Amino acid sequence: MAAAELRIAVLLDDGFEDDELRTLMELFESAGARLTLVSPVAKRACKGRHGRLTVTSELAASTARAEMFAAIVIPGGYAADKLRMRHAMLDLVRDSINRGIPVGAIGHGPQVLISAAAVAGRTVTCWPSIAIDIKNAGGLYVDRPVVDDGGIITARKADDARAFAEAILRRIGDSR
Amino acid sequence: MAAAELRIAVLLDDGFEDDELRTLMELFESAGARLTLVSPVAKRACKGRHGRLTVTSELAASTARAEMFAAIVIPGGYAADKLRMRHAMLDLVRDSINRGIPVGAIGHGPQVLISAAAVAGRTVTCWPSIAIDIKNAGGLYVDRPVVDDGGIITARKADDARAFAEAILRRIGDSR
Repeated sequence: MAAAELRIAVLLDDGFEDDELRTLMELFESAGARLTLVSPVAKRACKGRHGRLTVTSELAASTARAEMFAAIVIPGGYAADKLRMRHAMLDLVRDSINRGIPVGAIGHGPQVLISAAAVAGRTVTCWPSIAIDIKNAGGLYVDRPVVDDGGIITARKADDARAFAEAILRRIGDSR
Repeated sequence: MAAAELRIAVLLDDGFEDDELRTLMELFESAGARLTLVSPVAKRACKGRHGRLTVTSELAASTARAEMFAAIVIPGGYAADKLRMRHAMLDLVRDSINRGIPVGAIGHGPQVLISAAAVAGRTVTCWPSIAIDIKNAGGLYVDRPVVDDGGIITARKADDARAFAEAILRRIGDSR
């Protein structure tokens, strides 16, 4: 596959886990992916929760289209608490799942999957505080570093970032 | 009722809503309540998410007993995401509910009620991002400033702090 084709969307708002996002960006870029940072509003500076990383988004969720991307990634931290309230973000996630485009969510990221009604009947891992929310949404929660259930890839925390990125890249390869 | 008897526990960890907590503390204290700040570990400095307020806890959750208090209050913000992972906190909340001691939760505070399995069949309000988690937990979500369903008092956000405090104080009065 040509490197130019590997375009991955990262859904962002304030409050993401700084070091985890930095690691994920490095892992995807070193695999040849071009990242598109998608936030509720385009050209917005999004700050990490620890103040160690600020990134400027490229695209608004309302102008992003699932078919533009090889995968969608939802980082961890408290950004997910904001993203899950945005209809355009949930539409993008749902549309990606319906089209078989891999969707990854790490840490608190699976909160967005809950709001997109994408959890029922799926095996999912996440940060432990929201495990009960996954179960209440009809998901099967497991405590594993990474889970890929039919293209919905989830991971627990920053320490799992490498396994998470590798699972997403593997699924993109399989989907092509 | 004697002012000395009105002891209210506030469950705390890092990440609470600074101004909301300050307002709640002022409202309860001006009503004659003595506040006991309860955190996972005693004598711990807990920081608000905006860095505008730091409070030092008095008691560890493991040494707090429901019967010591006229009410239990769970503030909003991201502290709830930490508190809900602490068994001693959930035990205190469950024990208070079982004894008919009023339990209040504002903003993200109802996440703790979900983890304490205290939401099913109850009418609850909360910060909108977690409304779906309340529904998935079997609660009836409503968008109202404050709701008191049988001594479980919930509110949406900092703007509702006064109505929230008044509902808790009213319920304490009714319980005596």
